[in-house]
Amino acid sequence: MSLNIYLAGQIHDDWRQQLKDRAAEKNLDIQFSGPQENHDLSDDIGENILGEQPNQKYRDDVGASVNNFRTDILMHKADAVIALFGESYKQWNTAMDAGIAIGLNKPLILIRPKKLIHPLKELSNKATVTVENIDQALEVLEYYFK
Amino acid sequence: MSLNIYLAGQIHDDWRQQLKDRAAEKNLDIQFSGPQENHDLSDDIGENILGEQPNQKYRDDVGASVNNFRTDILMHKADAVIALFGESYKQWNTAMDAGIAIGLNKPLILIRPKKLIHPLKELSNKATVTVENIDQALEVLEYYFK
Amino acid sequence: MSLNIYLAGQIHDDWRQQLKDRAAEKNLDIQFSGPQENHDLSDDIGENILGEQPNQKYRDDVGASVNNFRTDILMHKADAVIALFGESYKQWNTAMDAGIAIGLNKPLILIRPKKLIHPLKELSNKATVTVENIDQALEVLEYYFK
Amino acid sequence: MSLNIYLAGQIHDDWRQQLKDRAAEKNLDIQFSGPQENHDLSDDIGENILGEQPNQKYRDDVGASVNNFRTDILMHKADAVIALFGESYKQWNTAMDAGIAIGLNKPLILIRPKKLIHPLKELSNKATVTVENIDQALEVLEYYFK
Amino acid sequence: MSLNIYLAGQIHDDWRQQLKDRAAEKNLDIQFSGPQENHDLSDDIGENILGEQPNQKYRDDVGASVNNFRTDILMHKADAVIALFGESYKQWNTAMDAGIAIGLNKPLILIRPKKLIHPLKELSNKATVTVENIDQALEVLEYYFK
Amino acid sequence: MSLNIYLAGQIHDDWRQQLKDRAAEKNLDIQFSGPQENHDLSDDIGENILGEQPNQKYRDDVGASVNNFRTDILMHKADAVIALFGESYKQWNTAMDAGIAIGLNKPLILIRPKKLIHPLKELSNKATVTVENIDQALEVLEYYFK
Amino acid sequence: MSLNIYLAGQIHDDWRQQLKDRAAEKNLDIQFSGPQENHDLSDDIGENILGEQPNQKYRDDVGASVNNFRTDILMHKADAVIALFGESYKQWNTAMDAGIAIGLNKPLILIRPKKLIHPLKELSNKATVTVENIDQALEVLEYYFK
Amino acid sequence: MSLNIYLAGQIHDDWRQQLKDRAAEKNLDIQFSGPQENHDLSDDIGENILGEQPNQKYRDDVGASVNNFRTDILMHKADAVIALFGESYKQWNTAMDAGIAIGLNKPLILIRPKKLIHPLKELSNKATVTVENIDQALEVLEYYFK
Repeated sequence: MSLNIYLAGQIHDDWRQQLKDRAAEKNLDIQFSGPQENHDLSDDIGENILGEQPNQKYRDDVGASVNNFRTDILMHKADAVIALFGESYKQWNTAMDAGIAIGLNKPLILIRPKKLIHPLKELSNKATVTVENIDQALEVLEYYFK
Repeated sequence: MSLNIYLAGQIHDDWRQQLKDRAAEKNLDIQFSGPQENHDLSDDIGENILGEQPNQKYRDDVGASVNNFRTDILMHKADAVIALFGESYKQWNTAMDAGIAIGLNKPLILIRPKKLIHPLKELSNKATVTVENIDQALEVLEYYFK
Repeated sequence: MSLNIYLAGQIHDDWRQQLKDRAAEKNLDIQFSGPQENHDLSDDIGENILGEQPNQKYRDDVGASVNNFRTDILMHKADAVIALFGESYKQWNTAMDAGIAIGLNKPLILIRPKKLIHPLKELSNKATVTVENIDQALEVLEYYFK
Repeated sequence: MSLNIYLAGQIHDDWRQQLKDRAAEKNLDIQFSGPQENHDLSDDIGENILGEQPNQKYRDDVGASVNNFRTDILMHKADAVIALFGESYKQWNTAMDAGIAIGLNKPLILIRPKKLIHPLKELSNKATVTVENIDQALEVLEYYFK
Repeated sequence: MSLNIYLAGQIHDDWRQQLKDRAAEKNLDIQFSGPQENHDLSDDIGENILGEQPNQKYRDDVGASVNNFRTDILMHKADAVIALFGESYKQWNTAMDAGIAIGLNKPLILIRPKKLIHPLKELSNKATVTVENIDQALEVLEYYFK
Repeated sequence: MSLNIYLAGQIHDDWRQQLKDRAAEKNLDIQFSGPQENHDLSDDIGENILGEQPNQKYRDDVGASVNNFRTDILMHKADAVIALFGESYKQWNTAMDAGIAIGLNKPLILIRPKKLIHPLKELSNKATVTVENIDQALEVLEYYFK
Repeated sequence: MSLNIYLAGQIHDDWRQQLKDRAAEKNLDIQFSGPQENHDLSDDIGENILGEQPNQKYRDDVGASVNNFRTDILMHKADAVIALFGESYKQWNTAMDAGIAIGLNKPLILIRPKKLIHPLKELSNKATVTVENIDQALEVLEYYFK
Repeated sequence: MSLNIYLAGQIHDDWRQQLKDRAAEKNLDIQFSGPQENHDLSDDIGENILGEQPNQKYRDDVGASVNNFRTDILMHKADAVIALFGESYKQWNTAMDAGIAIGLNKPLILIRPKKLIHPLKELSNKATVTVENIDQALEVLEYYFK
């Protein structure tokens, strides 16, 4: 049976594309989704649609509302969630998305490098599986089909 | 009707005590809970109960499991959640707890200083109310009783 | 067994107080809640807490967020909801609150004067009971205790 | 992934058709549904099926029951709801449908012209996104596919 | 821990009072509820509150709406449901209430005399316990406290 | 969008086939299901699979368990339920199935001849639509597609 | 805030009493419940109430139905579940109760001696906390109050 | 309508293959899933992905996490669950999976040989159907399609 996986995490590099490419190489029947990866578009989308807002706070709030509409639907359709943490960025959206997945009882794979063991210990303990890199996450997905 | 509020956020200073003291001064009928505030106890509790683990990763995992048992019950009993973010620390547990509250449909007050508007915009947009400091959060709680 | 009833409807006259007084006269064991009835406070509460906002839209949005925090908790605690419609005002909050009660499967009493039969027909059909005035609503509550 | 959108709002002009046409122009993979747009049929359907009722109240009630059967199923199948308000009509069904969507945790786009900011402030605050016209709503839907 | 039990079944004799009396004799900490046992009041309550309706169908419908408001709340508060069937009356409300209890996942005791084994076989199979008389039902309740 | 309808009711005549035939004549995209209509098979299936049971009660119970497995899955897959009552038979399974549909929040059409108005008043009041015969039920289904 | 804990596990020795005694020594505000600990009563209760059944299978089934009624209510009221496994007995009820707790999202403490690590690895991984003995389980409960 | 069945039970012989083969012979439209049947792979998968762990306990825990990710998704997709018990092995995963199915309200077929009547009496009583062998389970599935 095919899988639908939501990829939570930062959008500053191409980790999602790497994951998708390797899944394709292995012919895994998986449909991936996730937050908007075009960073500028993600930041601008609120004002693109609703026009200039009076200050940065409200510019950000309208942008967030459009992004949340998109991701709420995608996470609801997902069979499981992968949340990747790295050593850069605040990554609070990643932690929030992982928390939502937990609250909704969606199976969750946490990708956590060794250096982040301590600050992510409660999240790791609540995740279904914790791995250290995207290759390992892909092996977990591959195992689903075995 | 009395309130039961879970206080998500870092445990490195006394912000919870400040909030509780001011609620007491105002005679608000609120019961507060939150993660373990004794930081050393929170880190050690797993090995205190289960003995030494083979490495830091598993030391952290057993500690997290005991903390999660405690906080799962407390958040389930709460009418609403307050999540406070500051400018220090990674605060991924705070973001995760806020996400769980969202997934469980618990009303959520986000305390977010102005400097953190951009990185917390999606979380703020999903929160029921966003304020900038604990006095304002307290005013929201006080309004509940009016 | 005691009842907890949320009173949805406009806040421009004292219909809630009338209902409460008559319930008290009948010694009914009911705890009532509802939206903030101090209209000015309800409109100002957002800026009272968060300071002046850049325009009317955002002044209203912050006020609404604080009101929604309060009413979300109260409706969640309620055993049932009464929604009163009259011939004045837009009353969209009343219809929204009634819709939320329906979505949450809370029993709902609709108070609807005869002139409003046609525009409220779908809502009336979804309500548990439809009556025409607050005395009749009170009789429904009284019947609960018989 | 395709979208299924329920369009709540008045049925007196062709706003739904406009939205559908523009979605078709953009080749968006969206299936739209909504209340019965044939107004006479919507009013008559109860008596068409069940015969003449003794008075207007019961004529309306049987009609509403058939409309509610239809819309309950359609809203249940929807991934998200759009609720449009204008300056005419009572629009209580629109507010009720938006409330049901909120109670069911369906993502909600509110279309609200500027003149209606104040009376719709609580509903806007609970909606996932608020926009001012159907073109903007369409841009939100379009963003889902990006 | 105390019990709250909803007693579904016909209202033509005093079986509920017998059950309550025996529970009181045994000092069981149980709060019982159920449909309105004053049959005339149950039939008349709709018109008592809303005035004469145009025909029997609508007289019955308004009465049913008030009874349903009352029983919806009571069943929601119950820890478990007892449904008693006898050899007289149609008892469709009893079967409907038992079905609602099943749909809501409430534990259900079915009281079914031997003559009714065949027509109640599917309901008996879905009930948590099936007994033949109210003394046996009381023994099941008594066992809860052991 | 296609419909999946569960047909609750007695299995002693061909009312389901009539309904299906007329839906086919109208080219309605509906998939129907319901309880086992082969009455002997329905009664015998438990012992057919599990062998002779020690008495009628247990013969009926094992048969009911197999029928319940089948109908639980079918009702869970259904978008809506039709429950038909007639003037013959006890029809407790029909009332139970209608109750389960109510407990699960499935839209429900009640088919109730005029003679049964009084004993089915609470069920009719909880149903989404009440009609008097299968042609009217079919018109409600047809309206879904308009 | 007080705790309500369901104690799943075998009923052949006094482990529950030991746990309760130590909780009492520590003045922990915990209410404990669990399956019937009087083994003979647990086996006989079905026939005690319903009379002799035709064979062992049905004797066991009626007994189980009464025990399930009791434990369903108790587990539903519990804030968390403790499941204890030992080296004797089949303990399938313990594993089933733990599974039900998982399906209902109740926090779960697994007490598992070292020799049982391998056969309980999936259950341990799904439990909130895994400990090796009842003293450790008590320390987890004690930590809740700190 | 096609069926999706999760097969809980031990993985030491080919009972699942037998069931699948007979379902194929009968042309039943059923998709089966279940735990990983390659026993060595199931035990090794954690360390295969995450590398050697410091001891057997943690080797087992990482393996279990990957198996639980796989089976959580599969059970969630299933319409019903079959749980087979035999006279060998501890089979605690089988009982846990059956418990999870019960907690999630999935219809459940228990396959239980006669010798295991007593220790599985509570589980049998909670299952939708209890049979003695896989041929009988297949007949229950076959009946779904009749």
